Amino acid sequence: MSHNSFGHLFRITTFGESHGMALGCVVDGCPPGIKLTEADIQSFLDKRKPGTSRFTTQRREPDQVKILSGVFEDDRTGGHVTTGTPIALMIENVDQRSKDYSEIRDKFRPGHADFTYTEKYGVRDYRGGGRSSARETAARVAAGAVARKVIPKVTVRAALVQMGPHKINRANWDWAEVDNNPFFCPDAEAAKAWEAYLDGIRKAGSSCGAVIEVVASCVPAGWGAPVYGKLDQDLASAMMSINAVKGVEIGNGFEAAAITGEENADEIRMKDGKPGFLSNNAGGILGGISTGQDVVCRFAVKPTSSILTPRRTVDANGNETDIVTKGRHDPCVGIRAVPVGEAMMAIVLADHFLRHRGQIG
Amino acid sequence: MSHNSFGHLFRITTFGESHGMALGCVVDGCPPGIKLTEADIQSFLDKRKPGTSRFTTQRREPDQVKILSGVFEDDRTGGHVTTGTPIALMIENVDQRSKDYSEIRDKFRPGHADFTYTEKYGVRDYRGGGRSSARETAARVAAGAVARKVIPKVTVRAALVQMGPHKINRANWDWAEVDNNPFFCPDAEAAKAWEAYLDGIRKAGSSCGAVIEVVASCVPAGWGAPVYGKLDQDLASAMMSINAVKGVEIGNGFEAAAITGEENADEIRMKDGKPGFLSNNAGGILGGISTGQDVVCRFAVKPTSSILTPRRTVDANGNETDIVTKGRHDPCVGIRAVPVGEAMMAIVLADHFLRHRGQIG
Amino acid sequence: MSHNSFGHLFRITTFGESHGMALGCVVDGCPPGIKLTEADIQSFLDKRKPGTSRFTTQRREPDQVKILSGVFEDDRTGGHVTTGTPIALMIENVDQRSKDYSEIRDKFRPGHADFTYTEKYGVRDYRGGGRSSARETAARVAAGAVARKVIPKVTVRAALVQMGPHKINRANWDWAEVDNNPFFCPDAEAAKAWEAYLDGIRKAGSSCGAVIEVVASCVPAGWGAPVYGKLDQDLASAMMSINAVKGVEIGNGFEAAAITGEENADEIRMKDGKPGFLSNNAGGILGGISTGQDVVCRFAVKPTSSILTPRRTVDANGNETDIVTKGRHDPCVGIRAVPVGEAMMAIVLADHFLRHRGQIG
Amino acid sequence: MSHNSFGHLFRITTFGESHGMALGCVVDGCPPGIKLTEADIQSFLDKRKPGTSRFTTQRREPDQVKILSGVFEDDRTGGHVTTGTPIALMIENVDQRSKDYSEIRDKFRPGHADFTYTEKYGVRDYRGGGRSSARETAARVAAGAVARKVIPKVTVRAALVQMGPHKINRANWDWAEVDNNPFFCPDAEAAKAWEAYLDGIRKAGSSCGAVIEVVASCVPAGWGAPVYGKLDQDLASAMMSINAVKGVEIGNGFEAAAITGEENADEIRMKDGKPGFLSNNAGGILGGISTGQDVVCRFAVKPTSSILTPRRTVDANGNETDIVTKGRHDPCVGIRAVPVGEAMMAIVLADHFLRHRGQIG
Repeated sequence: MSHNSFGHLFRITTFGESHGMALGCVVDGCPPGIKLTEADIQSFLDKRKPGTSRFTTQRREPDQVKILSGVFEDDRTGGHVTTGTPIALMIENVDQRSKDYSEIRDKFRPGHADFTYTEKYGVRDYRGGGRSSARETAARVAAGAVARKVIPKVTVRAALVQMGPHKINRANWDWAEVDNNPFFCPDAEAAKAWEAYLDGIRKAGSSCGAVIEVVASCVPAGWGAPVYGKLDQDLASAMMSINAVKGVEIGNGFEAAAITGEENADEIRMKDGKPGFLSNNAGGILGGISTGQDVVCRFAVKPTSSILTPRRTVDANGNETDIVTKGRHDPCVGIRAVPVGEAMMAIVLADHFLRHRGQIG
Repeated sequence: MSHNSFGHLFRITTFGESHGMALGCVVDGCPPGIKLTEADIQSFLDKRKPGTSRFTTQRREPDQVKILSGVFEDDRTGGHVTTGTPIALMIENVDQRSKDYSEIRDKFRPGHADFTYTEKYGVRDYRGGGRSSARETAARVAAGAVARKVIPKVTVRAALVQMGPHKINRANWDWAEVDNNPFFCPDAEAAKAWEAYLDGIRKAGSSCGAVIEVVASCVPAGWGAPVYGKLDQDLASAMMSINAVKGVEIGNGFEAAAITGEENADEIRMKDGKPGFLSNNAGGILGGISTGQDVVCRFAVKPTSSILTPRRTVDANGNETDIVTKGRHDPCVGIRAVPVGEAMMAIVLADHFLRHRGQIG
Repeated sequence: MSHNSFGHLFRITTFGESHGMALGCVVDGCPPGIKLTEADIQSFLDKRKPGTSRFTTQRREPDQVKILSGVFEDDRTGGHVTTGTPIALMIENVDQRSKDYSEIRDKFRPGHADFTYTEKYGVRDYRGGGRSSARETAARVAAGAVARKVIPKVTVRAALVQMGPHKINRANWDWAEVDNNPFFCPDAEAAKAWEAYLDGIRKAGSSCGAVIEVVASCVPAGWGAPVYGKLDQDLASAMMSINAVKGVEIGNGFEAAAITGEENADEIRMKDGKPGFLSNNAGGILGGISTGQDVVCRFAVKPTSSILTPRRTVDANGNETDIVTKGRHDPCVGIRAVPVGEAMMAIVLADHFLRHRGQIG
Repeated sequence: MSHNSFGHLFRITTFGESHGMALGCVVDGCPPGIKLTEADIQSFLDKRKPGTSRFTTQRREPDQVKILSGVFEDDRTGGHVTTGTPIALMIENVDQRSKDYSEIRDKFRPGHADFTYTEKYGVRDYRGGGRSSARETAARVAAGAVARKVIPKVTVRAALVQMGPHKINRANWDWAEVDNNPFFCPDAEAAKAWEAYLDGIRKAGSSCGAVIEVVASCVPAGWGAPVYGKLDQDLASAMMSINAVKGVEIGNGFEAAAITGEENADEIRMKDGKPGFLSNNAGGILGGISTGQDVVCRFAVKPTSSILTPRRTVDANGNETDIVTKGRHDPCVGIRAVPVGEAMMAIVLADHFLRHRGQIG
């Protein structure tokens, strides 16, 4: 059952609310003997952390991770290594401003989960969105850092390839640029243009959506489990589980629908004594199993629902009203989704690596 | 574990290869006391069945379903009802022409799973694609017919909304048209244009992709289980598990990435004494939970990989060669994916209905 | 979810009722490349088959298994090998005498599941117990035959060690004797005595219970997954899931409760350059993980509930009445549970082998 | 997958080692709207807590539980209620004496998991047994307290019914006595005799085993999911997962093997207008489904493996040696297993209640 767990052999279970005591994650099934410290995890959390530029929420959360279990400082080796038992990770909430939530306590913010949580559970922790807050993704990023260690030969990277209506120029793609701008944008020119665009959005109290592309390199052929544990299926599940995601594509995605079989075929020739594909429309997956090419996945993030323009809504008592969601929000929540997408890709791949090894050896 | 199973409380396990003895499905967790006959299931299989028009494969498969278990003809009521035990469904393969498979036995057809199955398993049933064949989706459609019975108030419908590069005109949308053309197209005009287009594709020995839209009406608010059993997440998983699918969207999908928060917000007003949304960009899901609006999902199907134009490939012995995939193929496999998409939507919803009832009552 | 599935990486899903069309099993997760024919499975089914002696039910069921999928006759090798896809196994019911079931249709037979199925589901297939019949165990035995092939170095054997109040003399234990008597008894002397005892029970229309011991040899150290996937835990689950089982023990079991820590300790000395235990009270499992010694498990089977002595009961309409369960029943259903216990042990071990390999490599 | 998780709809995931930073548990799937405070949980932890009498380990652990998530203090109701999201519970370790572990770091203590963890994982946290320590059961007790709230009408109680070779006299059974002695013994006379017996064991540096009986009253008929989610199967799994447990029985258990069908039958008569059983050999379960009678389960706990008498063993380097396990150990670890058995029963029942409600409504 998967209410709050994801994965099978490499399995994460997350907990915590935006303004509760702590967020966290239990990573179960991690192989033993892997070197792992809090610093290894922290570096990824710092990428996702709020408040790193004027383009992300100004909430100040150090997002300091603690490893509660599953890692042992072996005095014979001096190193901290995983023991094969559950790795519990905890991030205490610090900046849960005890502000006045009366504005949103009873009103359903459009685009938020306020209405549906109330309908489902009858009760909800309305402080900052409670469980539905994007703060939960910190736990994913922490788990993703562990997942990367399980598949050390695989490189997982992501980039923002579209902000609002503005796409990058793929000819400019340079992975090195991703860390040179506040958008994780691989196109230096686009990044410059986006800065002006997003400043406009931000000052207007508005918000915009984004598209993120996640690429995993050096995934060997053979990972994935047809027909209901397909690698692309699990990637779709992983990405769609991220807050605010509305679409997922593998390889050329929706473009495949518009072209012919001749155009879409990834032909094969021998390369270095092995079959090699001449293109990668498939996004590295055929029949749900990795081909050995880059695994390529894209997902669309909707614009942040919290905006300063008044929107019509109702409250829990059935009164019609307007709402303006003040507070510290991301004008483009897709930016901070970049490390989250990487984490989910790593988690899916680590799980499939173990599953493949289980069945095939 | 989900190699060949899907769902949790309403759980399907499928088996069978394209040219093996039989395909089938075990449906576990179905509530008891539901009237169910083979005819109920057959009507849905007949929609997916090959050979219904010149636009689908000419393979002749009656796709006759047998209920092996889980349904009891209660002599007190005269009716066949589910007993709450596993419902095993079997479809025997009939038209597995014992043709010569030497052409594809050792060659990797581009776009097919030949290469990846070989890499993963070392052995594969190459007859008609074996387990990776779209014939497996017959089992899904059978299970979907059962799922519909579990949620009788919900209506699940799907339509082809794009064929190759040609989209429908949404202003012409008429559900009644869907059964009036061989494409499940809701736009009569578009259907006419597609006929000429697809004839061209077919005669050229080519193929094209498609986009299918699935809509579930009368889904109550509250179904879905955040944060890793989100309704949209499970729909993405379900649709991406269908053969040849490369992209999935919920609601406005990728369009959401291009617009502002103001444009994307589904505002709320009171309607008939209950909160009602003024638009449905969300596709009926917020925070992973149904809102009570139509649940809307779209998926992109790539063009059929089997085409008559020679494509470059290699064989299992590392020889470079060309391949032409003769045989009886669908020029647009997306057409027969329409009832499959409906089935997967019904399966996801039936599962979430039971899960919701389990936790909430 | 595990209504009708068991195991994780090696996972079985069974279906079928005593008097339905067919019983069967889908085995998912089996490694590819394993030689497997129907004959391999049939030999184990024949051990469990009814009607092999006067001490088992006289129902005539050939229990002929068919492999519907997952095995491919590779024309390059000539052999039938598993392909890594689901192996569907089917056993058609033949001798479902269309007798008059009016006697048990509305009466709750004491010791049977009639009452509880009715309470739970509201409807039940009363013919021969329906889904609650021990006929379901044929599917387990078939799956167990596949499981053995996954762990070819492990030997799984079982024996009847107690019939009614009569225990074997362990000093006489000889595995070779197990096939020399109709009881799977490893003690030739006891078997002789039991023959007279069980004839008496049978002629009186009575029944008796039994204890079965299952032993797996050559299980390497390290299988098992603490703390909720313990090897002993999964064995307890497996054995208790067999019809009519009321108790399970690992190693010295309940005897451990009565002795001291000094007596119970399995001391360790070096043997052939490796740690070796001087006794095996633990039954080959410590902390939920195999030690490398024989894995030893015992389970108690209650006496067959269907007896000729009238018992007091009520019917579905609340009338008090008596019942005599005529028909073709096993005087000691524990006998035919011997191959079932072996099968469940093999299934648990195959699953844990794959799970161990997944996490550890 | 169930390495460190148990249950399906009511699902617990535990983490932590004996001498790590903290132990804990994530309870997922709990229904919303249930009043729950830390004090509700603490009262059960206090029963299991070490150091409550001279008959349990003198390690001083306050076992103070913190609720990290999943419970919200609703300012409209003033109460703390569950929100339907994961309830994370944490117990910090306090008394992890940083003593010298060199004695056991490299030696395999007989009866402990030292050898098997090393064989499986290659590394182990040897401090106090690490993950294999019975301290993990504190997390179970905490989760069990939540489970009880999910099934408020059900009463779950347990008692020690055998200490070493000494059984209680069932004629003396009085639930009220259970809290009057340090053994959870329902027979006041037996408790007195055990005191002397266990003092002898303790002073000798020895240990003894025990048998615990767990009884759940007011379980409605119909809970349980045949054939692989049987209520008795899940109880067997639950109890066998507890540290040091070697056997599990339902109802009359192994005794059933020794008697006849006539003796074993629980006959039925009408009682207060409903079918009522005249005995309960079945332990409240038939065909894997609850009958409405008391659900009765017993389990055998082996003697504590840590004893002062030297035992032969080897170390990790293959040297033969002796070991004496000093430290603060329970002379009869079965005593503190009583609240753990109750917790596991409650967890199994809460899960089956939700599963039943999911499928049947």
